[in-house]
Amino acid sequence: MFSSVLVANRGEIALRIARSCRELGVRVIMIHSTADRDSPALRLADQRVQIGPATAKRSYLYPPAILEAALNAGAQAVHPGYGFLSEDADFAEMCESKGLTFIGPSPSVIAALGDKTQARNLAAASGLPVLPGSPAPLRTGQEAKQVADEIGYPVIIKAVAGGGGRGMAVVRDPRDFLKACAETRTSAQAVFGDGRVFVEKYVEHARHIEVQVLGDLHGGIVSLGERDCTVQRRRQKLIEESPAPGLSAELTGRIRQAAVTLARAVGYAGAGTFEFLVDPGGAFYFIEANCRIQVEHPVTEMVTGVDLVREQLLIAAGRPLSLRQRDVELRGVAIECRVNTEDPRRGFLPTPGVVERFLPPGGPFTRVDTHGADGVSIGAEYDSLLAKVIVWAPDRDQAIARMRRALSEFHVSGRGVCTTIEFLQDILGDARFQEARHTTSLADIMVAATS
Amino acid sequence: MFSSVLVANRGEIALRIARSCRELGVRVIMIHSTADRDSPALRLADQRVQIGPATAKRSYLYPPAILEAALNAGAQAVHPGYGFLSEDADFAEMCESKGLTFIGPSPSVIAALGDKTQARNLAAASGLPVLPGSPAPLRTGQEAKQVADEIGYPVIIKAVAGGGGRGMAVVRDPRDFLKACAETRTSAQAVFGDGRVFVEKYVEHARHIEVQVLGDLHGGIVSLGERDCTVQRRRQKLIEESPAPGLSAELTGRIRQAAVTLARAVGYAGAGTFEFLVDPGGAFYFIEANCRIQVEHPVTEMVTGVDLVREQLLIAAGRPLSLRQRDVELRGVAIECRVNTEDPRRGFLPTPGVVERFLPPGGPFTRVDTHGADGVSIGAEYDSLLAKVIVWAPDRDQAIARMRRALSEFHVSGRGVCTTIEFLQDILGDARFQEARHTTSLADIMVAATS
Repeated sequence: MFSSVLVANRGEIALRIARSCRELGVRVIMIHSTADRDSPALRLADQRVQIGPATAKRSYLYPPAILEAALNAGAQAVHPGYGFLSEDADFAEMCESKGLTFIGPSPSVIAALGDKTQARNLAAASGLPVLPGSPAPLRTGQEAKQVADEIGYPVIIKAVAGGGGRGMAVVRDPRDFLKACAETRTSAQAVFGDGRVFVEKYVEHARHIEVQVLGDLHGGIVSLGERDCTVQRRRQKLIEESPAPGLSAELTGRIRQAAVTLARAVGYAGAGTFEFLVDPGGAFYFIEANCRIQVEHPVTEMVTGVDLVREQLLIAAGRPLSLRQRDVELRGVAIECRVNTEDPRRGFLPTPGVVERFLPPGGPFTRVDTHGADGVSIGAEYDSLLAKVIVWAPDRDQAIARMRRALSEFHVSGRGVCTTIEFLQDILGDARFQEARHTTSLADIMVAATS
Repeated sequence: MFSSVLVANRGEIALRIARSCRELGVRVIMIHSTADRDSPALRLADQRVQIGPATAKRSYLYPPAILEAALNAGAQAVHPGYGFLSEDADFAEMCESKGLTFIGPSPSVIAALGDKTQARNLAAASGLPVLPGSPAPLRTGQEAKQVADEIGYPVIIKAVAGGGGRGMAVVRDPRDFLKACAETRTSAQAVFGDGRVFVEKYVEHARHIEVQVLGDLHGGIVSLGERDCTVQRRRQKLIEESPAPGLSAELTGRIRQAAVTLARAVGYAGAGTFEFLVDPGGAFYFIEANCRIQVEHPVTEMVTGVDLVREQLLIAAGRPLSLRQRDVELRGVAIECRVNTEDPRRGFLPTPGVVERFLPPGGPFTRVDTHGADGVSIGAEYDSLLAKVIVWAPDRDQAIARMRRALSEFHVSGRGVCTTIEFLQDILGDARFQEARHTTSLADIMVAATS
């Protein structure tokens, strides 16, 4: 095992990674921007290094500063967490070239799966169902529109380098296409530094199902069941659960197998997620792969008993998988709610400020992953995720009741700080969610109904 | 299900009970003394009633005030938690006579098992092994000494009405017997209002193993595996785990079966614990039964997935057990550490005061049951349990590593407030504990070695 790991991230995921490191006896080096100087996440660091100003582009997204910190602190490996540089093949390669192990799949796998058209093509070549769409990035709006017209509307325009639900636009009317395409290109260029887009058939009323996979450096691959991430607002996941409710075991079994097939085809090593849409007829389609730990990984941990970050560290250190597929046993139901510092009454506008009183929920089968604490300041520079509340129960009804209880006791107050707790409660109390009749449009429909 | 339940307790267990009530949609009525007026536990109350002053005898131990609060608030049932009135057959009977359901076994079962000599006799009559000892309370010191001389030293003098590890004395030399007996009687009279004692053979180097049982009102009984509570300081449990390490499945199977046999013989309904000692030769002996939820119940919850307080509520409401014995599946290993506000450097003297900064651990498979929070005051009137940290892992080595990580990030500071965290870390790091070679004397030996 590594003697020390640098955590190239912030917030709750930095804490999460530090915990698994410490349990393995690994020294934890944490980096931080000036804005995060007083973050409670840093209390788990054996060594902390301030690497730059609040602006992510000059700190958490700036490889030279991170690599310098890692080398100066004597780190043997770098854990990128999620977001920031976690799916940046160039950063992974820079780490390797400096003799640092990048905790994630190889740069070539990240590059292949990170390009969404290439990932689609790899999936199709492995026999996975994909949606009708363009097999390569499209050079002009006119070219893209030709593809869209052929596929038939609605279509979705996606950034080739997109991720995290950003850089997408649904087009229902051909007359809107060119404008939407131009906007998507502009925003993709701004967010991902890559303005290339492609076009895919859009599935209305879909369920979002993803499969957690672990692969080692010796060709071993296992799946750890699926997660249902259907509850999304503007393609940002809000509530995730495992297993997927209301789908047949036969269907989820085929989806899991598809993920394993693709992971094996690309020689996947590390923790990865393979995402699919399921249409109302029960057909499923591969949409993309995420080469990193996901925000919603705790639901898989709670149903499988597997510490996924620990597995990432063991895999990166060269160990063969400790689990065989037949050892993976899913027990009960886990649900996660993302609590964001946003104001649902003002279009979910982020509400930076200082948390004065922070009383997270607790008790049986309730986990809270958070960097929150009394006195924490929430900066405008970073995303608004304050806490993830995860519960487990023997069945879904009890899990929902437990989550509603947990959120009901979650108290956050402070100057100007709002949270999405009440909105999450509305969804948990909605019959469509409770009966697993919901689709990816539920949250947006609920927002529209109240505004 | 009851529409409302009064929680006749305080601190972490009051919170714990409130959580299961709320998940079942039950209105929570919480009582409190003047000293607990600002306790964060009360934030989970739908209704709160101040019932008396800080002195427990005039509040949490005073049935008239509790019953009045229950009736005025319209409670249908009373949950006594642990300690205080939880094993008081008279209180259980008073509840029933007022039309309130007492959440626990029937008053007659509490009375029978609460009398330790009677419990021994019932166990022996059901074929359970018991230690050589007096079958009835002893009237005089001389009579007690005769029994002790017959059994052979060392012996243990126990209060008939004792519990929670109090009201006991080990005697190794016959010349010390009469003095120890007189002291035990005096303290038993003071603590339990009943000075009667009995004598039992004392087992050196024992392991303390207890079995969690659930029984319903229709004759159903299941066991939920055993807990090992061998780590004790002066008979106060410090660390508990499930399953018991280093004992054969055959032996623990026989102990579990013995508990079920006795529970069935007495018609046990509710959650109960049957305690045993295992001697170095692998023989086991019934010692006592606890007719209530135990402090250490979370370790059983984490390995079985069963919410024990929820089961108590369902049983009390008349439901048949939802679990059959074959449905009870133990997974992995859970460990609990009790974090007390005591100063190990001054003989574990309680350190009342105000907690200024309270940062509990979190993360995967880590649960903290606590009434602690920034600004909480720790009174001298009540026991010093501040928090229970419970972790789960697939195996014991990982569970120990996880607990050491969890305790290492637990930060409690405040004027005059000390905790036992460091002492717990010493035990977790001790080879005897890690290799499961420890006995009930380990913690006392470690204290003696450093003082």
